[in-house]
Amino acid sequence: MRIAVDALGGDYAPAEVLRGVAQALLTQEFQPEELLVVGPEDGIKQALKAEGVSQLPQILHTDQVIAGHEKPIQALRAKPKASILLCVGAVRDGLADGLIAFGNTGATVAAATMGLGMLPGIRRPGISVVLRGSVGRFVLLDAGANPTPKSLHLLQYGIMGDAYARDILGIAEPRIALMNIGGEASKGSPVIKEAYAHLTEAPLNFVGNIEGNHLFFGEADVIVADGYAGNMILKVIEGFAEYLAGKAAAISDDASEEVKGSLRSLFGAADYAEVGGALLMGVKGIVLIGHGRSKASAVLPALRSARADVEKGVNHHITENVAAFNASQIAPEGA
Amino acid sequence: MRIAVDALGGDYAPAEVLRGVAQALLTQEFQPEELLVVGPEDGIKQALKAEGVSQLPQILHTDQVIAGHEKPIQALRAKPKASILLCVGAVRDGLADGLIAFGNTGATVAAATMGLGMLPGIRRPGISVVLRGSVGRFVLLDAGANPTPKSLHLLQYGIMGDAYARDILGIAEPRIALMNIGGEASKGSPVIKEAYAHLTEAPLNFVGNIEGNHLFFGEADVIVADGYAGNMILKVIEGFAEYLAGKAAAISDDASEEVKGSLRSLFGAADYAEVGGALLMGVKGIVLIGHGRSKASAVLPALRSARADVEKGVNHHITENVAAFNASQIAPEGA
Repeated sequence: MRIAVDALGGDYAPAEVLRGVAQALLTQEFQPEELLVVGPEDGIKQALKAEGVSQLPQILHTDQVIAGHEKPIQALRAKPKASILLCVGAVRDGLADGLIAFGNTGATVAAATMGLGMLPGIRRPGISVVLRGSVGRFVLLDAGANPTPKSLHLLQYGIMGDAYARDILGIAEPRIALMNIGGEASKGSPVIKEAYAHLTEAPLNFVGNIEGNHLFFGEADVIVADGYAGNMILKVIEGFAEYLAGKAAAISDDASEEVKGSLRSLFGAADYAEVGGALLMGVKGIVLIGHGRSKASAVLPALRSARADVEKGVNHHITENVAAFNASQIAPEGA
Repeated sequence: MRIAVDALGGDYAPAEVLRGVAQALLTQEFQPEELLVVGPEDGIKQALKAEGVSQLPQILHTDQVIAGHEKPIQALRAKPKASILLCVGAVRDGLADGLIAFGNTGATVAAATMGLGMLPGIRRPGISVVLRGSVGRFVLLDAGANPTPKSLHLLQYGIMGDAYARDILGIAEPRIALMNIGGEASKGSPVIKEAYAHLTEAPLNFVGNIEGNHLFFGEADVIVADGYAGNMILKVIEGFAEYLAGKAAAISDDASEEVKGSLRSLFGAADYAEVGGALLMGVKGIVLIGHGRSKASAVLPALRSARADVEKGVNHHITENVAAFNASQIAPEGA
């Protein structure tokens, strides 16, 4: 088992990414042969040694990186040695079983989709994020890979989310819900209504539409959303939690240790540091997308998640789910 | 100045709505002649007297109500004496200057749009909600009246939001932003990109796209969103705040009064009780839509908001804004 690490992508790369890699090695959670670090060879060696790493992991050298503001497709064409392309190539060629990347999300999605191809029967990738609600964790997908999906794509997000919730969250019969702005089957855009019909017919535990105010109360384990809504929801939660945390900090400036402790434990629930990033589902390989603002502390959780995704065989189970679904009926046309 | 109150709409109607009306009268914030209560005459008289109200407001009798789960258009046809229709009729006929309603939002929007008509030059109504961020209040519209708007509708939301932010929030040069899933002008659906171009050309202080994680940090005073996104954002914020408040309550079960006080002050920011409801903008009249779950304490803030909207002449300023905009250019076609 080996995970490729894009050392160049992200707001604090390469310094923070490499500090995180060093932590993974120094804690012995990961052995050097389990990592493949992609970036400038000399800089990586120097940085890891400075952190006290004696046995270095394998390094794949490149200086090229796609910055956060670059347009994905153009940038990928202009930079054939971009770190994310080398990471994807390593997975495609079997040098690694998965990758973690903290850089330009659009470029990561495009590089992985083109470089790895799709799992059998899956048309479009989706970004899945794990959130925590009052009765535990749940998965939201798509969080932005596919802002204007067709209804069949949404059905496939349900099928993929089901596999993920079983493998990674350990839920025996995941309840799948469709993100919408009303509870009734008749609500929403034509695409959402079609997706509702597909999900109803599929061999899934589909529990119907869900609205934003119900997300956090344990009513569903998998939330299927179009990428436009999913991305917006994720960012609003992120921003709102940050805003409240800021208010909390202001309150607790003069507050006792007890108050500060309570406020800290409150906002621990709001981030998804626990799983280190979002899994790009549907591509042939494990691609974990970390937040662009990640610092060193996000690297080890991302590595752990990628390892779990590889070891639990999420993609194998997605493929099985899709095959079972296709066997159960004639696949919808026109997607 | 007189406000019509739909006493029958809402999860806790009529009892809680009437308790709220009684509070408005008993505190003398509103005089009896400033209110017109729509609902079952005997029940209203009895309830208000039981609360200690001696001088009763005018009552418009009806027993018909459109429930929260009913389909708006069908229900409005089937129930010509529905309380919301009588409220809208009162505004149309000059018996009231505005109305407040806590019932079926879709029915309220449809009744007001058909019964009052649109302000000159405005094509579609939008629901505007006031939220609070780290540097004060801001307006989000549309929060769900128009889930699949055309780009011209979004432009008009910007123009209406500008008037609202000036009149009600007291901001001299409101900054208008467009809700999107990326910062660049090239991001988003064709409709959003067109709206970006319209807003750039309009005589507004347009500051570009805004993403969900930036909403709460004072970067814009008016957030223009399609009703699908706006509704989802509002509900996600509501649900997330409720979830965190629940966690806070669990934490503070064993906590000191200091901790409880801090947590309470934190979540005061998350609701929009302050303004009592959302203003339906674009129709010829003041229509304030309260939350279906409102209890008595929401009625007086809603009445205050409706009165302020009437007195500050929001609709007059919207009409002026639209006229100025139309004078400044040939209006876009095809909306």
